[in-house]
Amino acid sequence: MSKRIYNFSAGPAVLPESVLAEAGANLLSLGETGIGIMEHSHRGKAFLKVYEETEALCRELGGIPADYDVLFLQGGASLQFSMIPMNYLKPAETADYLMTGAWSEKAEEEARRYGKTHLACSSKDQNYNYIPDAVTYSPRPTYVHYTSNNTIFGTQFKATPQVPAGAFLVVDASSDIYSRPIDVAKHGIIYAGAQKNLGPSGVTLVIMRKDLVERGSKDLPAMLQYRIHAKNQSMYNTPPTFGLFVMNLVFKWIKSHGGLAAMATHNEAKAKTLYDYLDQSKLFKPTARRDSRSLMNVTFVTGNEETDNAFVSAATKAGFDGLKGHRSVGGMRASIYNAFPVAGVTALVEFMREFEAKTLV
Amino acid sequence: MSKRIYNFSAGPAVLPESVLAEAGANLLSLGETGIGIMEHSHRGKAFLKVYEETEALCRELGGIPADYDVLFLQGGASLQFSMIPMNYLKPAETADYLMTGAWSEKAEEEARRYGKTHLACSSKDQNYNYIPDAVTYSPRPTYVHYTSNNTIFGTQFKATPQVPAGAFLVVDASSDIYSRPIDVAKHGIIYAGAQKNLGPSGVTLVIMRKDLVERGSKDLPAMLQYRIHAKNQSMYNTPPTFGLFVMNLVFKWIKSHGGLAAMATHNEAKAKTLYDYLDQSKLFKPTARRDSRSLMNVTFVTGNEETDNAFVSAATKAGFDGLKGHRSVGGMRASIYNAFPVAGVTALVEFMREFEAKTLV
Repeated sequence: MSKRIYNFSAGPAVLPESVLAEAGANLLSLGETGIGIMEHSHRGKAFLKVYEETEALCRELGGIPADYDVLFLQGGASLQFSMIPMNYLKPAETADYLMTGAWSEKAEEEARRYGKTHLACSSKDQNYNYIPDAVTYSPRPTYVHYTSNNTIFGTQFKATPQVPAGAFLVVDASSDIYSRPIDVAKHGIIYAGAQKNLGPSGVTLVIMRKDLVERGSKDLPAMLQYRIHAKNQSMYNTPPTFGLFVMNLVFKWIKSHGGLAAMATHNEAKAKTLYDYLDQSKLFKPTARRDSRSLMNVTFVTGNEETDNAFVSAATKAGFDGLKGHRSVGGMRASIYNAFPVAGVTALVEFMREFEAKTLV
Repeated sequence: MSKRIYNFSAGPAVLPESVLAEAGANLLSLGETGIGIMEHSHRGKAFLKVYEETEALCRELGGIPADYDVLFLQGGASLQFSMIPMNYLKPAETADYLMTGAWSEKAEEEARRYGKTHLACSSKDQNYNYIPDAVTYSPRPTYVHYTSNNTIFGTQFKATPQVPAGAFLVVDASSDIYSRPIDVAKHGIIYAGAQKNLGPSGVTLVIMRKDLVERGSKDLPAMLQYRIHAKNQSMYNTPPTFGLFVMNLVFKWIKSHGGLAAMATHNEAKAKTLYDYLDQSKLFKPTARRDSRSLMNVTFVTGNEETDNAFVSAATKAGFDGLKGHRSVGGMRASIYNAFPVAGVTALVEFMREFEAKTLV
């Protein structure tokens, strides 16, 4: 096996080495069953045990109240963009969207097929480099939707938005789920693709208040009704069993490292190391407004595209992979999710320092 | 690691040991990249190479003509049950369904939300224990849908159904895809969940004529439009990257074993061993009509529920797992997909012979 390098990919992203080793140890036989984890029937005792343990860990770590269902679905956040409005938004109703990036835009576009939408705020004027302070809701929104962390633009909500009475709050937490404590009870629906902080791509975690599960439209295909997934413990059809198993191992890893509060401390320290360096650098500049900076995706530029490219190229050669920024921001992006090690951040800062010294000679 | 046992699960199901070993070898580092297969960005060069190779192998093995798209989606066959009618069936139009089991029923139920359906044949009168010979189509069906292999009832189509001019043929091939050569050109759409013959659960293979890709409704969420998946090479959103990698390895395994014709020979031999024994047994009786027998799922009963249970229990103790039949048929089911070894079938027949001798003393 090749030496592992530092993987700054925005997702799918780095996973804990111990999780990968444990996943590998169960490929040919899940425990002593004599059948690999991918080969077990989802209806069999061995997998049901994995499933129940995964849900229990998810609930324990997230402090999920009993009146919420936990669902493990397919289709990623992208399918949730449409499943939510098709279940809850009637043609005459309005859903409010907090527009803080490309994923908020995609979510709002899908909602327009089903009802009215209102942009309660937007930071598009500054290429989404901040989280707006002021929010203006429509008179009676059915729900309010926000994206807690904006992977592309490197911004993150620092507090849960307040919503008008009667509306429920929906969050796409794909890129910061379980990276810090989450106030579940303030939300009606929390959803996230697994491939950043929770596991491999192909599993979508949905945490949903039970009254909403019941309230969803019944005039939809079975696979697009939350109630059917909830009633069948996410096994109306065959779930992505291996992805669930890896998620189980990631939850155990988070727990053994102290849970979500400890994850937050760990992530704050990593991000601080990078932002502290960027704030004093004469070559690199962070792109997100200071009060809106993401702890998950640190975006920065030199202001010169050639220098950006030279840096990414040199960094890649030195074993720092995935640093090229998204084309809509340019420059660089260091994604440092839960599993990204402190040592990788320290090494990157050291490398940047050297690159800066050489470049600014 | 525990000794591997014989896994007769109907799906998720047994995978080749060499595939599992190879998957495990790439968990911490895909080749020499220093990044595990689950951790690679789906937009990066390393994964794109996996993706392109997987599609190329899929096309080569299946003999897929150039005017067909190959898509790797999420949501299983269950999501295809609704995606197909929502894309192609208009309210005034009729889709014809060949009813040969529980999955055909579920597919047809979803279609009713979008247009009219007509049951062109049904074997429900005999608890779906045969594939009907006679089919009566509606005057102008938009498409004809069939389930090539009925996992629960142990029946399988021996030939591709003929369809009326103007209609296109759709097949749910979840439980026999790539177990034998398939005449792609006779079909408009071929779809299959991966978890029986192709890989882990969580990936859905869709092979679709390009003119149908274009013809699908545009008035649907992005994730439910085939054209959007086709245009983005199945990467409109993050695909299930690990599942695709395992599928890649399974395709290579099929190729190294001679391709689909060789798979058919291999599967026929395994099934013959079991059916030959069943046909002369005084204890066990196959449940499917002789001309409709599945090569993938061999269903049988003793005619006595207590004896069935005693057999399943004894077999499980002896290392033959997953033999309990589906509750709607009762008795036993031996699922013997591509990766199920000949030795396992021989061992099972030997065990059944001994059980029969002891029981009929």
